[in-house]
Formats: sequence, C-alpha cells, structure tokens
Amino acid sequence: MLNKENLKRDLALVREKSPLVHNITNYVAMNFSANALLAVGASPVMAHAADEVAAMAGIAGALVINIGTLDAEWVESMIIAGKSKSSAGGVVVLDPVGAGATSYRTEVAWRIIEDCHPTIIRGNASEIMALVSADVKSKGVDSSCSSDAAVDSATMLAKRTGAVVVVSGEVDYVTDGERVETLRNGSPMMPLVTAMGCTASSMVGAFAAINSDAFEASLHAMALMGVAGEVAAKGVAGPGSLLTAFVDTLYNITGDELADIVRQ
Amino acid sequence: MLNKENLKRDLALVREKSPLVHNITNYVAMNFSANALLAVGASPVMAHAADEVAAMAGIAGALVINIGTLDAEWVESMIIAGKSKSSAGGVVVLDPVGAGATSYRTEVAWRIIEDCHPTIIRGNASEIMALVSADVKSKGVDSSCSSDAAVDSATMLAKRTGAVVVVSGEVDYVTDGERVETLRNGSPMMPLVTAMGCTASSMVGAFAAINSDAFEASLHAMALMGVAGEVAAKGVAGPGSLLTAFVDTLYNITGDELADIVRQ
Amino acid sequence: MLNKENLKRDLALVREKSPLVHNITNYVAMNFSANALLAVGASPVMAHAADEVAAMAGIAGALVINIGTLDAEWVESMIIAGKSKSSAGGVVVLDPVGAGATSYRTEVAWRIIEDCHPTIIRGNASEIMALVSADVKSKGVDSSCSSDAAVDSATMLAKRTGAVVVVSGEVDYVTDGERVETLRNGSPMMPLVTAMGCTASSMVGAFAAINSDAFEASLHAMALMGVAGEVAAKGVAGPGSLLTAFVDTLYNITGDELADIVRQ
Repeated sequence: MLNKENLKRDLALVREKSPLVHNITNYVAMNFSANALLAVGASPVMAHAADEVAAMAGIAGALVINIGTLDAEWVESMIIAGKSKSSAGGVVVLDPVGAGATSYRTEVAWRIIEDCHPTIIRGNASEIMALVSADVKSKGVDSSCSSDAAVDSATMLAKRTGAVVVVSGEVDYVTDGERVETLRNGSPMMPLVTAMGCTASSMVGAFAAINSDAFEASLHAMALMGVAGEVAAKGVAGPGSLLTAFVDTLYNITGDELADIVRQ
Repeated sequence: MLNKENLKRDLALVREKSPLVHNITNYVAMNFSANALLAVGASPVMAHAADEVAAMAGIAGALVINIGTLDAEWVESMIIAGKSKSSAGGVVVLDPVGAGATSYRTEVAWRIIEDCHPTIIRGNASEIMALVSADVKSKGVDSSCSSDAAVDSATMLAKRTGAVVVVSGEVDYVTDGERVETLRNGSPMMPLVTAMGCTASSMVGAFAAINSDAFEASLHAMALMGVAGEVAAKGVAGPGSLLTAFVDTLYNITGDELADIVRQ
Repeated sequence: MLNKENLKRDLALVREKSPLVHNITNYVAMNFSANALLAVGASPVMAHAADEVAAMAGIAGALVINIGTLDAEWVESMIIAGKSKSSAGGVVVLDPVGAGATSYRTEVAWRIIEDCHPTIIRGNASEIMALVSADVKSKGVDSSCSSDAAVDSATMLAKRTGAVVVVSGEVDYVTDGERVETLRNGSPMMPLVTAMGCTASSMVGAFAAINSDAFEASLHAMALMGVAGEVAAKGVAGPGSLLTAFVDTLYNITGDELADIVRQ
C-alpha cells in the first residue's frame, strides 16, 4: 500500500529540490509537460541534439525518453542519452508512445529498452501489451483496451526488463514484477487532453529524481497525476479548461490534500 | 445548400466512430489540433518518420498534410505518406500553409498536389490564390486579403486538381469546381488564435474519414469550426481564453445547436 | 528613463503595422510565442528550412533566433537566416536559451553572435553570465541566479558584441554597454509559465521591427511583457491560468494602462 507520509514527503521534496528533468519527448507534449513540471516545482529541459544529450542528461536528475514523434535522428539521440544516463546509474524513464500502432514504434521501443535499460516504463494498456505480444495492435496513440487487461503484460514486462512498469488508464497499475499497486483517481476527461500520458511520464521522472526507490516514486507521481486530474476536472466546462485547471492544481495542491484524496 | 440532418449525422458519426486522423503537421499546431480533434471525439496521431508514415497513414481514416514548418526531410515523409494514402484510395487533406510567402512553399505545395492528389485542399485566401497565380504574395502565414477575393482561384484550383477546395476567412467557401457553398459563422478573434486554420484542416480530415462525400464532409467540418468559434468567442476576454473555450465548445456542442446556429 | 509617450506610440505602431516576425525558435515556445505575438497585433511566422529561411527573413520586420531546442541542422538554418538578415541591415534578436547548461549551447550561441551580429541579445541571468564567463553553469534553461548579478556581464557583452543586451528576471535590465535601464514589473509566477522568456525575445523582435532604436524597442517590449504579466497574474489560480490571462492581457491592454503601470 501507498504510504501517505512518504507521498507527502516526496511532493515536498520535488518542490524543495526542483529536480532538473531532461525530456527527449514529442512535439505535441513539450509545452504541456514543461508547464506541468514547472507547476509542481520541477525544472524541465527539452534537448535532443546528439551533440549535447549526454551532457544534458548528465546534469539532470532524470532522463525521460518519449517516442511520440520519433524519427531516425531523434532515436539515435535517445539512445545516446539513455545509454549515457543508465551507465552512470541514473534514472531513465521510457514512454513507448504508440507501440503496437506501427512495427517501427514497437521495434524502437525495444531497442531503447535493450540499449538503455530504463528504470521505469510508463504507457497505456495497448502500448504495454504490444511490447509483450506482437499480436496487440494500438489505434494510433490512444489505448484500445482497459488498463485491467494489461496487468499481466505489465508484470511480464517488468520481470523481463527489470524496470518498474506503469500502466495508466481508468485504474493505474504500478508493478515491479512482484508487487502490483493500483491507483483509482482521475477523470474520464483526462484522456481528452492530449499528452496527459506523456506528462505522467515526465512527472514520474521528477519523482524518481528525488526518490531512489523507483517503485515508490512511480506510485507517488501517478497518485499526483490522478488526484490533480480529478480535482481539476470538478466543474470544468471541457477538456480545454481541464488542461489549464490541471496545471493550476499541480501548483496549488498541498501534501495533505493529495494524501486525503488518493484512492487505491 | 447544407443539409442540416446530414450535418448532425456527421457530428454524431465522428463521435461514434472516433476516426484516427494522421497528421503530418507543423510544430505550432500540433498540440492545439490534437486537443481539438480529441474534444470533438476523433483520435489524432502525429507521426512523420519516413520509416512509419505509410504504415500509420494506412491505419488512419484520413491523412492531413500541413506544410507550416516544412523542411526537406519532412517533405519527403509527406510525399511518402500522401502517395501511399491516395494510391490506396484514402483521404488526403493538404493545408498549403504560407504558399506565396516563399517560392519554396509554393513549389512544395504543388509537388504534394501532383504526387499525392489530395482529396481536399484547405487554405486562407492568400494561400489559395498563390497556388493559382505566381503574382500573389502572402505575408508569412496570415492572409493579406479577404476570402471573397479567392473564390475564382479556388474554383480554378478545384477544376485543375480534382480536389475539393476550402477557403477560410470571414466567409468560408467550399467548392468542387462546379458548386460553391458559403459558411458565414465565426468570430473576428479566431485568426488571433494561432493554428486555427491548421486545426480546421485536421477537422476536415476527421469528417472526411466518416463521410466519403468530400464536398459535404468539408462543408460540415467548416460549419463546426465556424459555429464553435462563434459560440466560444461569446464573452471571452481575449484570444487566450478563446483557445480554451473553443476546445470546450467542440466537446459540448450538440448536433441541434450546430444545426441551429450554422449560417450560409 | 523610459519615455511613456514613446512607449504608447510603439504599442500603437505594433498594432497598426502588424510586423511580420520570423521566429526560428524552439518547439516548446512556438505555440505560446505565436499566440502572444498575434494577441499584441504582430504577425508571427515560424520557418526553419534551409531552403527558405533567407527568403522568409527577407520579408520579415525582424528575425528571432532562439536555440532552446537546437540541433546541428537547425543551427545551420539559424546561421543562414541570421547572416542574410544582418547583412541586409535587418533586425536579428538572439535568445541563447540554456547557454552555460552545456558547452554545446554556449558555443552555438557564440557562433551565432559572431556570424550574425545580433541587434539584440535577450536571456536570463545565467545565460548572459555564461556567455561572458566560462565558469558560469546554468541549470538547464532556468536561471540559477538573480538578474542583478548579471548586470556587469550584460554590459560587457553589449560592449563586446555591439548588441543591446536584455537580462530578464525579477528586475529586467536593458543595456547598450553604456546606458542601463531597469524595469520592475512582473510576477513571481511568470517563470512558471514555460517559454515566457522566449516569448519576451519574440516580443522584442516585434517592437524592434517598428522602432529602429533597438535600445528603446527592447525597453518597450520588456515593459509590455512585465506589465502584462503583472496585470494577468492578479487573481489567477496558478500558472495554467496565467498563460491564458497573459495572452488576453496583451490583446486588451491600452497604451495608457501600460504607461500607468510600468515601473522603473
């Protein structure tokens, strides 16, 4: 079970230490993810040049690799950065956006897993299932099935890779291959804000930068995402307003509110 | 004339079928266009890698090619995706952003037209006129003339290319070279939200994915854009709020409201 | 001291002339900067293709080069555009995002300075100091020190390069190497909106496009940024709302309000 005191401690630590989170992420997510990280107190940087990714990853508390708008050159930079970060013992988060939608994405995701040994992998149900079974097809970047269906795949993926695996959806699952924790906050409107999942991966990076227990850090980051989405969705007129309210909520939420509202 | 029952049917179909819309679009538009598509019920994906664009276009209901922040590599991906999609009989929408601003943009737009045979071309007045007459110069990506001035060019372009051509502006025009339909909704504040035109092109893709009559689909998508912009603009404090309210309106608007408010 | 009548005149001129501002800027900033420029009355264009940057810069009132998400190919385009613009006597604004965070960024910033002779350089304290002293390290793209600490560096940089140098922070400084002007508006929440600094650089471009006195233009643009941020921050719930309110304020603010609220 999630330890509420530790959850509050980690939110306070993110705000106090303002960890630098190096994102090699997609064009759709960059602005929203940066604003979410700033709102919670972290310090985002986006950098993808092969000439500097190792240096930038080196000064960051976590590296987040997101393949949402990948291409051959960016993949090379992701690999350079990821290898450098993991070989130095640092935190690497992988978001395998659209794995299963095209074979290229599935292959690139696996190449990153094998070369960069991510600490944490976070995806939606289709993506996590597609990494484990070649039979699963994603519809673009949106999940075509519920997160419940992906728990077994997540456990297998965690065992096979040594990564903590997070499946986000109506229920979020966090597993290290042995333990499985659930989180039951959020709002049905959250998937209608583009890059909400990508932002969750960046948030996982921020928490893993200040808590060396990757399992607990992932759980805490996903708790914050779900609670902030749930709080923000109250009374908003639609997903446009939710985007704004979500960032405001990350800025305003207290540790006590977070601990009170989180449900497992 | 626009058939209001068909308009309502198409809005319902987009929400029901949630068509996958593959966008190869510009960096400025990506987030807003994705949020607008999600809000209306479609499923956006942004993907530009030469290694996967044909596969991604193949599983999508429509491909939207937008040259707003083009470069040589992206153009090659646009051509690969567009050729693949059109040769399979699929829907290709072209947004020739900034045609006429530089000769490079005009040339690339024509290359895409000739290689990919777009089903629908949507632009502002300057862009559509620049595609027909080399004498027309655009000021960057904003139109320097009213949409009325572009009706003849739009008709000529439609006849020459076989595409449905949409000119957006204070009055929107939709033509297949024979018929010309008008739409008279919207707000003067809409052009102050960047990528509103790009988002219109993506919306056209969503409707063309569920209605094989490209002329009617274009008319319906533009009707929704104009009505949503007009509704959203009521009472907002400025273009920042309009962006948010526009996305919320796409999410909330009913078919009856849309049919009531649309004006030709 | 800032001349309030000239400040009002320049805001009116931006709205009247709607200068085309050509941005080669980072992926995080593009949407927000475009919306801010549109809201104030300018006409933004984002274009980075080597095939067209000289042509696009040639028709623009100002070129803004921002290295936030640089890579080797984009840097070549920045240099082509900047050389072309400055050799024709045009306005070039440089935003050396993240200078000091990696040596690559510092080197690229200097290469642009030497090749393109920027009219104006705008950065945060860490960035400006890092350009002058190799000992200064930035933490990603956020400043690690107050703007006061960078005044000497700014003056040295202005003398060495011939550019007007702007340091933004709690107090903004504008210097041409001899004169130093301060601006004391803003809100502590402004740095929590990503790309606020990048947008300031684009705003400087808009004002420098209509006022050939680069020192005064920079002062006026930064006055508008600080005042709009301060006005917008009143009563907002957090940085998500601030982004929206900031754009709305740029759209609504009058010259008289601007002149009344500005503090030096």
